[in-house]
Amino acid sequence: MAFKAKIKVTLRPSILDVQGKAAQHALENLGYSSVESIRIGKYMEVTIGEESRAEAERVCNEICQKLLSNPIMEDFSFELEPVN
Amino acid sequence: MAFKAKIKVTLRPSILDVQGKAAQHALENLGYSSVESIRIGKYMEVTIGEESRAEAERVCNEICQKLLSNPIMEDFSFELEPVN
Repeated sequence: MAFKAKIKVTLRPSILDVQGKAAQHALENLGYSSVESIRIGKYMEVTIGEESRAEAERVCNEICQKLLSNPIMEDFSFELEPVN
Repeated sequence: MAFKAKIKVTLRPSILDVQGKAAQHALENLGYSSVESIRIGKYMEVTIGEESRAEAERVCNEICQKLLSNPIMEDFSFELEPVN
């Protein structure tokens, strides 16, 4: 059995999002003055072949902490859904 | 009134995800053999100050097409939720 994890990694609110600011300024220059803020993060879809949801959740938490996010600057959250 | 758009930008399925492959190999080397695939995209939170949901949706579609995604290689989807 497998689970698909849909993971969002976002910069912590206290961290300046330089990429987001650049996108916001570009949008202002294009005339989109109603855009008040942009924060840019990562979105990942990971297929995890484990028998139980609990085991897939454990693996997903570990890989997010160890590789897919930087816990000093970023937060992560995910949803798991069964595949097949 | 304002709306928060939660936007996911993903590589089209036919496009090779080099960054995802690299992450998958790194996880294999760390011993996570149950990870079968990883696709890496972007996640953005954009605050749009418009009076109506329809108008916010129009702006969000436009900025995704023009700046926040590359329509040749990427797909996007978003959810809107009212702020205050």
